[in-house]
Amino acid sequence: MLGVCYYPEHWPEARWREDARRMRELGLRYVRIGEFAWSRLEPEPGRLDLDWLGRALDTLAAEDLRVVLGTPTATPPKWLVDRYPDVLAVDEAGRVRTFGSRRHYSFSSRRYLEESRRIVTALAERFGRHPALAGWQTDNEYGCHDTVRSYGPEDARAFRAWLERRYGTVAALNEAWGAVFWSMEVRSFDEVDLPNLTVTEPNPARVLDFYRFSSDQVAAFNRAQVDILRVLSPGRFVVHNFMGFFDQFDPYGVAADLDLASWDSYPLGFTDLMPLDDATKARYARSGHPDVAAFHHDLYRGVGRGRFWVMEQQPGPVNWAPHNPSPAPGVVRLWTWEALAHGAEVVSYFRWRQAPFAQEQMHAGLLRPDASDDVGADEARAVARELAGLELPAATPARIALVHDVEAAWIGAIQPQGAEWSVAALEFAFYSTLRALGLDVDVVPAGADLTGYAAVVVPSLPTVSDAALAALRAFPGPLVLGPRSGSKTASFGIPPELPPGRLQELMPVRVTRVESLRPGLEDAFTWEGERFAAGTWREWLEPVGDGGAAAKGRFDDGGGAVWRHREVRYLAFWPGPAFLGRFLAHIAEVAGLEVRALPPDVRLRRRGPWTFAFNHGPEPRRLEPPAGARAVLGGADLPPYGLAIWDASR
Amino acid sequence: MLGVCYYPEHWPEARWREDARRMRELGLRYVRIGEFAWSRLEPEPGRLDLDWLGRALDTLAAEDLRVVLGTPTATPPKWLVDRYPDVLAVDEAGRVRTFGSRRHYSFSSRRYLEESRRIVTALAERFGRHPALAGWQTDNEYGCHDTVRSYGPEDARAFRAWLERRYGTVAALNEAWGAVFWSMEVRSFDEVDLPNLTVTEPNPARVLDFYRFSSDQVAAFNRAQVDILRVLSPGRFVVHNFMGFFDQFDPYGVAADLDLASWDSYPLGFTDLMPLDDATKARYARSGHPDVAAFHHDLYRGVGRGRFWVMEQQPGPVNWAPHNPSPAPGVVRLWTWEALAHGAEVVSYFRWRQAPFAQEQMHAGLLRPDASDDVGADEARAVARELAGLELPAATPARIALVHDVEAAWIGAIQPQGAEWSVAALEFAFYSTLRALGLDVDVVPAGADLTGYAAVVVPSLPTVSDAALAALRAFPGPLVLGPRSGSKTASFGIPPELPPGRLQELMPVRVTRVESLRPGLEDAFTWEGERFAAGTWREWLEPVGDGGAAAKGRFDDGGGAVWRHREVRYLAFWPGPAFLGRFLAHIAEVAGLEVRALPPDVRLRRRGPWTFAFNHGPEPRRLEPPAGARAVLGGADLPPYGLAIWDASR
Amino acid sequence: MLGVCYYPEHWPEARWREDARRMRELGLRYVRIGEFAWSRLEPEPGRLDLDWLGRALDTLAAEDLRVVLGTPTATPPKWLVDRYPDVLAVDEAGRVRTFGSRRHYSFSSRRYLEESRRIVTALAERFGRHPALAGWQTDNEYGCHDTVRSYGPEDARAFRAWLERRYGTVAALNEAWGAVFWSMEVRSFDEVDLPNLTVTEPNPARVLDFYRFSSDQVAAFNRAQVDILRVLSPGRFVVHNFMGFFDQFDPYGVAADLDLASWDSYPLGFTDLMPLDDATKARYARSGHPDVAAFHHDLYRGVGRGRFWVMEQQPGPVNWAPHNPSPAPGVVRLWTWEALAHGAEVVSYFRWRQAPFAQEQMHAGLLRPDASDDVGADEARAVARELAGLELPAATPARIALVHDVEAAWIGAIQPQGAEWSVAALEFAFYSTLRALGLDVDVVPAGADLTGYAAVVVPSLPTVSDAALAALRAFPGPLVLGPRSGSKTASFGIPPELPPGRLQELMPVRVTRVESLRPGLEDAFTWEGERFAAGTWREWLEPVGDGGAAAKGRFDDGGGAVWRHREVRYLAFWPGPAFLGRFLAHIAEVAGLEVRALPPDVRLRRRGPWTFAFNHGPEPRRLEPPAGARAVLGGADLPPYGLAIWDASR
Repeated sequence: MLGVCYYPEHWPEARWREDARRMRELGLRYVRIGEFAWSRLEPEPGRLDLDWLGRALDTLAAEDLRVVLGTPTATPPKWLVDRYPDVLAVDEAGRVRTFGSRRHYSFSSRRYLEESRRIVTALAERFGRHPALAGWQTDNEYGCHDTVRSYGPEDARAFRAWLERRYGTVAALNEAWGAVFWSMEVRSFDEVDLPNLTVTEPNPARVLDFYRFSSDQVAAFNRAQVDILRVLSPGRFVVHNFMGFFDQFDPYGVAADLDLASWDSYPLGFTDLMPLDDATKARYARSGHPDVAAFHHDLYRGVGRGRFWVMEQQPGPVNWAPHNPSPAPGVVRLWTWEALAHGAEVVSYFRWRQAPFAQEQMHAGLLRPDASDDVGADEARAVARELAGLELPAATPARIALVHDVEAAWIGAIQPQGAEWSVAALEFAFYSTLRALGLDVDVVPAGADLTGYAAVVVPSLPTVSDAALAALRAFPGPLVLGPRSGSKTASFGIPPELPPGRLQELMPVRVTRVESLRPGLEDAFTWEGERFAAGTWREWLEPVGDGGAAAKGRFDDGGGAVWRHREVRYLAFWPGPAFLGRFLAHIAEVAGLEVRALPPDVRLRRRGPWTFAFNHGPEPRRLEPPAGARAVLGGADLPPYGLAIWDASR
Repeated sequence: MLGVCYYPEHWPEARWREDARRMRELGLRYVRIGEFAWSRLEPEPGRLDLDWLGRALDTLAAEDLRVVLGTPTATPPKWLVDRYPDVLAVDEAGRVRTFGSRRHYSFSSRRYLEESRRIVTALAERFGRHPALAGWQTDNEYGCHDTVRSYGPEDARAFRAWLERRYGTVAALNEAWGAVFWSMEVRSFDEVDLPNLTVTEPNPARVLDFYRFSSDQVAAFNRAQVDILRVLSPGRFVVHNFMGFFDQFDPYGVAADLDLASWDSYPLGFTDLMPLDDATKARYARSGHPDVAAFHHDLYRGVGRGRFWVMEQQPGPVNWAPHNPSPAPGVVRLWTWEALAHGAEVVSYFRWRQAPFAQEQMHAGLLRPDASDDVGADEARAVARELAGLELPAATPARIALVHDVEAAWIGAIQPQGAEWSVAALEFAFYSTLRALGLDVDVVPAGADLTGYAAVVVPSLPTVSDAALAALRAFPGPLVLGPRSGSKTASFGIPPELPPGRLQELMPVRVTRVESLRPGLEDAFTWEGERFAAGTWREWLEPVGDGGAAAKGRFDDGGGAVWRHREVRYLAFWPGPAFLGRFLAHIAEVAGLEVRALPPDVRLRRRGPWTFAFNHGPEPRRLEPPAGARAVLGGADLPPYGLAIWDASR
Repeated sequence: MLGVCYYPEHWPEARWREDARRMRELGLRYVRIGEFAWSRLEPEPGRLDLDWLGRALDTLAAEDLRVVLGTPTATPPKWLVDRYPDVLAVDEAGRVRTFGSRRHYSFSSRRYLEESRRIVTALAERFGRHPALAGWQTDNEYGCHDTVRSYGPEDARAFRAWLERRYGTVAALNEAWGAVFWSMEVRSFDEVDLPNLTVTEPNPARVLDFYRFSSDQVAAFNRAQVDILRVLSPGRFVVHNFMGFFDQFDPYGVAADLDLASWDSYPLGFTDLMPLDDATKARYARSGHPDVAAFHHDLYRGVGRGRFWVMEQQPGPVNWAPHNPSPAPGVVRLWTWEALAHGAEVVSYFRWRQAPFAQEQMHAGLLRPDASDDVGADEARAVARELAGLELPAATPARIALVHDVEAAWIGAIQPQGAEWSVAALEFAFYSTLRALGLDVDVVPAGADLTGYAAVVVPSLPTVSDAALAALRAFPGPLVLGPRSGSKTASFGIPPELPPGRLQELMPVRVTRVESLRPGLEDAFTWEGERFAAGTWREWLEPVGDGGAAAKGRFDDGGGAVWRHREVRYLAFWPGPAFLGRFLAHIAEVAGLEVRALPPDVRLRRRGPWTFAFNHGPEPRRLEPPAGARAVLGGADLPPYGLAIWDASR
């Protein structure tokens, strides 16, 4: 189903009714409102003005629209921060982050937690049982603008308490951090400061704990709101809108308290910012890289334990990327269908009408600032019509799981060891290669039950929790472990048995040396009779005892490249695209999965018996339909930015 | 006439007489002095020592030299800032900018305004009627080193008062800024902080007002000095030395209180810093880009309402650019004549003698540090001799006006929407193209009377004041409007009728969408049978009603590229050089102006019946003289870096 | 001899005995310990715990290992900085540099000087006469992580006192600095602030004095420790471990109080960071640029007045460069032999065993974290065996001296005048060119006695002290002076007689103009019938009187390029590699030195009658042995990364 984000407080009340009518006529069913409206809901300290919001809900309800109500805690008003300056966050350089945009609060401010509870309680008491209310969105895009981590006194206080809970004694903390190094030992938890403004890099274990703490604070902040909503708004779902390519907190931790996940999909902005070469960026500037939205759909479907929305769908040019091109004709429709193919329950466009003022005035809406229909409205309407006659089958799990772990990103950022090391890039390379082979992928957290998958890929998993180890152990294979997997203990140390540490149980090898390589410096190896070049990262491994691990591909100096033990493979290098394509096709074959040679820019996705095909490029493509399948939408000839759906159910 | 900048306080008094004699012998007539001498004029708080300056003036007067006296407010002495720390400016990161270079004061410091008045009064009382005194220069290079905007308590106080004067009520401010967005509303003017250190970008309307306020503060600071000088120094002119490629304040606003404008011309430093490709920078490294000095002559002639000086003319290598090459032989003479051709009343070299100490010791003077003649002295002497026998005709207006607007630059910087968007680059592209067609150009402010021009180009004018609209409306055409013209209201919003907003009266179209494009991504359009590529920026337009606007060139997707309504053209894209050359030649033809195919590096400029030709390149060039004209200087064969003057008066 | 760096505090005491045994078995003789152990030596304020260190010394002594004991002042513990916050350094942006890594103290903190004395006294009293104690290392890598210069109140206080000692009166300071410029005069030393956070660049003379002061503070801090050690630890040497490519303090000044110098050699990290082109960086990524270690050996041999160690030798991949490749097989052996060839008394590997925790966990040791032998151990063992049967002859001085001056680097950094100006790059170009000609080089400080050298090169020496002038005057030649030599007075001014100032005595010319050129902009000149291109920097010179200086090479515009007066040559431009190769070969010929056409990547070094040849490249090379020499190690065929030694003693 389709939805939209709407800001009644931005428009004259007289306008609301027509807006609601046009939403319904366009085929929209859900409307998200309220998430930045605190200064209107409480114009003066303690003086609540909720009536206008009630009238807005009623107006939407009158058109049979269902409402998702956002808590307004992303934007505390000026009077609040003036009254309680300790709610403000502090940046890594030690400067207070000031009022005047959004997210200017620290997750560790006790006062802000209290104020958040107060406003959420007031809203939930008033609207928690409103008949139009479908659910709640907590806050907005936690962490946006680098706001997960704050470096003020409130943060230091909370970090110390967190450490005390984690370690119990300061001796345990010193031991875990290896604080004897450089005389970094502390005598009490009060002696632990935040890890900013040090002379050179601080202890990575201290930084990792600070990142874990900061992530936990987000979850705790969110939970405080959810707890209130559960009591005061029974039967309504609670959701949060997560972001793309964002790893400063653990989304699984936050989502544990939610009913479903959602994310904000801006494929063009992401593509402009991703680390792609210029030609690729230019090629997909107006449609987005073919895997960028899909990756996040698959990620957040997992975060939502199978349920997710696109809470904000780009409907036209945005305002925040270095370059903001216009989506090519048809692309908004393509994105919408793509989200549905990946299992989205609702795709909600951001925003209804382009605001003519303030920071986002250059962000397109479905409507232009003058309320005329923009291109996005036309394409949304087209999807609504196409959807009208269809009943989508239930979404089905993929056959391949890709293991995602936020700690891997933190550890890679804290201690890259090579300037080009990026877990996100590695994950995306695995994902994109699998998708280009025509395969569906589930992105799952480390520790998830892997039962039922035909193959599992772990791009890189430095720390291996008990749960992660148990899940991998239980998986019969084939299992692919990427470089640096098992390379760190939970305390950001090198495992005593050397990497891959706990994973030696599955892959009995020992990493005796690693190196990072500058661009332009590559080693060659041979695998399955073919030559490949490897740059960026390399490891030297040796088998542990008679464990049975063997090198199946070798570098020219004799070092093993691809290691195998039973159904587990370990890659002792950063895999480039040529190797990855060949290797993952091989893995799929071993797993009994069919790979397809897809035309360029084309991707497939199954949802139950339906197969969706998307052409993300500007040239028409032809694709043979699944044998015996019935065309639900489109056909074998995919127009530029077009799509087709086939039903193979009988 | 020629002049020079001189610092008697840097040299033994015994030396002054010889310096003055040599200045006169070299052919110089004006000497600027005093503008950094506060610590010598007032060595202790309240203890003035002006006698030495009197002797310096007398010494110069004895050689018949005329003096421009600078007020020393660009360099408050150490005792002053120690006594009144609130005079110091604060940078955007919130750090106090310390003593030890120059311009370390905030324009909003009440205390500094008072101290400035005090020292200016003292100087004006003592020297205001000195017979050698030709005029005053206020301060020095307002805004140099990013000093227009300051972020301290005095600035916040003054900004709030400025806002209160502008908006009257806080409700009006909230409305104008669209502060309902992200709950940015304030309840009183006291709640408005300066727009720095926010979590993400602050409200662009708030920033624009802060930029306007900061610009106004410069004008007010300058006016306070002028008011004193008018009273105490009757009959003397007041001038300020503006800078090149500088847009942090509105020069027209400051110049409104002055008698004439001046600017500081450093073509090699500017060329090293301009956004040009490497080959162009290398080609013009020793002569300067052919249009860089000319553009500023034409700009500041307008700022000075027809009257301008070059207050500081580069005489050799400077010290402040990343690379500081030596001007090629003849180039100092070329620059001097070029300024005169564009109407400069005086060209004053900076500086008389290279200082052997402190920050500018690597900045060449006419004399070397050992007082021997440097190359600049020889070239200045040559010009003085050439000038001796000539009477330059009065300068005449150009036939083409280019509309310049500092708000366009501010808006583009605050909200570029595409990383390559730069109003300065767009203006310079228009200017340079016109000049390469052999045309003279007047740079005029938005709102200037356009009567008498044959054609007007507006590279980009986002906000359209009443005066600007009236002037454009009254102009019969041809008029060229560049992209984003009329795209913003005075409150940095999108006009309700959509862009070009108020300009729809002249160009009845509606901009329904815009996009910015990354380098390497271009669209093609056809205009007058020719194909052109457009990158960086594109707009989609539709005609308003039956207004009669029509697309005269179209992109391949059918969108209009060049729109025309009567004699107005609107460019719906960022014009590249190939298109701009063809298009502006066409506009000139429509305007009845003759364009000439000039040899590379050659530029023309008329002054009354005289035509000047300049060869900015290292190869000799041949140029046919104007029909029937008499050679005043040089001839049809332009040597490298050479020039010619023809008189067509009969 | 060989040594190693060891951290007993990082490992269980039960492990020490085996470590010591294996060190001895590997062939190591020296062990450096203790330099970061303050938190273990004094776990609580005033409560010393030195016993464990005594047991560590005893354990090492039992295996006949000699100990270098580091004073632990590079890492003051947390309780110390909490008690005395004024010990913390302040960065140039005015922010306190916090605890949590190392070197978080200001050299000017009176309190920290006192605390340093206290802990050093305690250690020296306890261990100063320990039989295993060979010597002391003061602190660790003074200045690492940009810690020489600090900008806090303690630093300001000390700087003022330093200035008062230097100048006596504030009038003298104002005069020396040319403070009249921009009214920068002060009325008392108390009015001098530190030169940070100024609006634009501060007075270069003020900055130079701040750099000199900061350098002196390092020497004074070091001296305070040495003074204690001399008294309490008779007969033991005192050393410090200096760094590569580091110029923030004057190593000769610090070393004046030491018995010998040492430095920390990380050729791969340096090569990754050096300003080399990408192809060169890739070529030497796994072996290091052929001249990078050699240059520092030759530099620090001079700093140590003939005696030096490599205190830390890279044994495998490190952790701190952008890219950290693995040394190619044989390269650790190559580096060790290279150091010995250049006269190192001891080569000490960093570190014994890779730590599995904290900041340096990715820094390889001789042993892996699991205590197994890493590649470095094997190569160190090989060298130990090779050394066992040999007695190295005493090191002999080179025939060419290269004059190094830290003020040249400071002046170039403070006022580069051209973005590419780098004294370090110029010095390295001279050095590398000489070495590629097969020549040995001594790097000597300005002012060193040059007697006995066949030729002297001075890449650039802006300020010329009395001692430097006397030494150059006494040298019969050939002497080469690079650009900008003699260009500044001691007060960072232009000499009254123009550059080369005091050097006009040796080279009677006057520099009338200089220029800096952007990359891609070059002038051509002819020298000895050959054409060369010169970029980056150029000067115009004229002879002084009839001094006899003459241009021996000329630019196309007639300006002299290579100037000669008697046996002195002055280069009026930045010499590129092609010219430098030809020119320095010519100088060697004039000096009667034989140059050899070496194969690529090969370098020679003599030590007494022995000639060492090193192949720094991946291809085998052949090199004719010295006539009549006996092969000590290897032969004429140099394997990749291999070496050979010949003895020509009879």
